[in-house]
Parts: sequence; C-alpha cells; structure tokens
Amino acid sequence: MSDFDTNLPSIRQVQNFIKDKHEIELKLVTGDLLAGKIFWQDKHCISILDHYDKQTIVWRHGIVYLKPKS
Amino acid sequence: MSDFDTNLPSIRQVQNFIKDKHEIELKLVTGDLLAGKIFWQDKHCISILDHYDKQTIVWRHGIVYLKPKS
Amino acid sequence: MSDFDTNLPSIRQVQNFIKDKHEIELKLVTGDLLAGKIFWQDKHCISILDHYDKQTIVWRHGIVYLKPKS
Amino acid sequence: MSDFDTNLPSIRQVQNFIKDKHEIELKLVTGDLLAGKIFWQDKHCISILDHYDKQTIVWRHGIVYLKPKS
Amino acid sequence: MSDFDTNLPSIRQVQNFIKDKHEIELKLVTGDLLAGKIFWQDKHCISILDHYDKQTIVWRHGIVYLKPKS
Amino acid sequence: MSDFDTNLPSIRQVQNFIKDKHEIELKLVTGDLLAGKIFWQDKHCISILDHYDKQTIVWRHGIVYLKPKS
Repeated sequence: MSDFDTNLPSIRQVQNFIKDKHEIELKLVTGDLLAGKIFWQDKHCISILDHYDKQTIVWRHGIVYLKPKS
Repeated sequence: MSDFDTNLPSIRQVQNFIKDKHEIELKLVTGDLLAGKIFWQDKHCISILDHYDKQTIVWRHGIVYLKPKS
Repeated sequence: MSDFDTNLPSIRQVQNFIKDKHEIELKLVTGDLLAGKIFWQDKHCISILDHYDKQTIVWRHGIVYLKPKS
Repeated sequence: MSDFDTNLPSIRQVQNFIKDKHEIELKLVTGDLLAGKIFWQDKHCISILDHYDKQTIVWRHGIVYLKPKS
Repeated sequence: MSDFDTNLPSIRQVQNFIKDKHEIELKLVTGDLLAGKIFWQDKHCISILDHYDKQTIVWRHGIVYLKPKS
Repeated sequence: MSDFDTNLPSIRQVQNFIKDKHEIELKLVTGDLLAGKIFWQDKHCISILDHYDKQTIVWRHGIVYLKPKS
C-alpha cells in the first residue's frame, strides 16, 4: 500500500469533497482552524481555497482533523 | 509487518469499537478531546461520528490516545 | 531491524513491565501524565489500565517518556 | 513515488513560486509566520529569502501551511 | 545506513556518554528538562538514570536536544 | 535518494556553515532559539558549539529553521 493509495477511505473521502466542492474545516497542529473548499490533494499536502479563492497549501503532518460543514 | 496490519492489537481494538458502535474519546495533540463513535479507520486516519452523526476525519499523527467510554 | 523488534531494550523493558504488572507513568506530548499498568504493546501503541481497570490506548508518537514507579 | 517527486502538485507549486519570485508566507509549527520569497527547495527543507535577501532554511516538518501573497 | 548506525556521530557520542557516565541534560518537546546519566540507547529510545538511579525511558521523537554537563 | 544525501542543498549548506565556522541560529519546536557554530551534522542530528565551545546535540526533528547570522 503506497502512502497515497486512492483506495483508502481517507484519500477517497477528500477526493469526493473536491468533486462536490464541499465546504470543510481543517484543525491544525497550531490550534488554528482553516475553512474553505479543497482544491487538490497529493501525498504531502492538501490545498484549500478560501472564500476569495485564495489558495493555502497545508502539509498533511500539520493537519489534526478535517470536518465537512453541513 | 505493513503499517496497517489488522493483526495488531491497536488496529483490531479499533475494529471492535467500530463493530460494537462503542462510544470513545480521542485526546488530540492540540489538547482537544473528541467524543463519538468510530465510523471507519485506515492507514492514515480514524473517522468519528458525533451525536448528530456528523463526521470528523482525524489523522492518526494527531491522536495522542483513545479511551473507550464505559 | 523491524520497527517492533523484541530484542530492543525499549520493547523488552515494556514487556517486563507488562509481565511484572509494574505501575508506570507516561508523559505525553500534550504535557499530560498518565499512570497505570501496561496492558499490551504493539508497533503503534501502548495500552494502559488505570486503577479502575479502564483501558487507554496511547499512540507511541504521543509518548515523550515512560517512568516506572518505585 | 519518491519523497521528492517533482510531478506532485505540492512540489511543482513551490517550484512555480521560485520561478515567479512570488511573495509567500509560511505558518510554522511554533505558530510563527515567516514571509519572503522561496530561494530553493529540496526533500527536507524550503529556503526563504526575506526583504534583506537574508536566507532562512526551514525544515518541511516545521511547516504547517504556505500561503502565496496576492 | 540503517536508522541505528553506530558509525553516526550522534549515536557514537551518546555511546561515549554512557561509557564515561557523563552527566547530561535532555530538552524535551514539552519544554521539560531531564537531567541524569545515560543508561542505554536503542533505535527508539534513550534511557536516563537520575540521582536516585531511577530510570526514565525517553522516546527519541520526544527529545529536542542533548547537552553534556561540564 | 538516501535520507542523508550530501548533494541536497540543505545538507550541503550546513556543510558550508561548518567549513566557514559561520555563526547561525536554530529555532526549535519548543520555540527556543539556539545560537552558535555548527560542529558536525549527521542523518539524525546537528551539533552546535556555543561561545564557550560547549556542545549541544540537536535532533533534526526538533529544528524548525536555521538562520545564518550576517
């Protein structure tokens, strides 16, 4: 199983949020919260677009959890 | 031994909590506590459902400990 | 040397604490202290039983040090 | 996929910021913010030049997110 | 180069401190300072004996730096 | 590419600082700043000598960034 296996639920779930342009929230190891839509993901990072379509590239090791907004 | 070896007690124990829909509590590296039932697990993440069935995808590296509620 | 090599002193020492039901204390990356007896260990986690025999599954990456109580 | 795969969006995106001398901001695990232009990147680090062309070599594990300035 | 290569200066230096029973100080990721003599080291941990010969097993990932006392 | 590849800019740059006995500053994950000259580096650690030629062995995972002093 490579590190970026698209069969894994955690990778597939993020892929669905990208497709559905679902609003999500990331809790970071610094305690910060980051809201937006997921732009892309790869083995190291997840990229978020905020409401102004500004991109933030977040390293996976800096993410504690991801919460989809209802 | 792959990273996600279902023979490992830590993986098997989580699998049992999923099957029994056992209430658990996660202590995160930020100090936060997250309560709920485990929805699924994979090599990178554990997904929790809260009392409103809202999903939170938690990265394993962000988890310090897991405590089953009595 | 695999990651969970029972010849390593750190793995063997924990194995002895399990066998002797030795009281120990874990210092966690959040600064928390967790006291109890070690129930089991595997490549990812160490499980602790507190005084009420309640289990806490601690991820190794969340442990800073382990101290046996005299 | 090696750890430093230039086909990955996260590596390629940083490469573009280097080429375009784009101003960026790094959020670090200590909570610090570091602003400047990216000088170079490799498997372990990203080097930033501040407004005085002073270099800071940042370890990837110390970076939470990277934000391009508009 | 395996993870625990005794040719590496960092491993050899700790080996010397063990041999010479040199007093050292460990700075931990929690900010704590731990003083004592190094008892043993392996791939995952470094064990310290304090002034009462009490052992503390410290995970390498929990250590920021090691300082020999003069 | 091994973990300690002397062709990498981040490894080579530290090698140059050692050769030139360049004063540098390390920012640690605890928020501490450590100043001095780099004594040696290996796959796991970077050793610093302070103004009294006292050695501090810093684990790479404990370093956020390195800044050369002008």
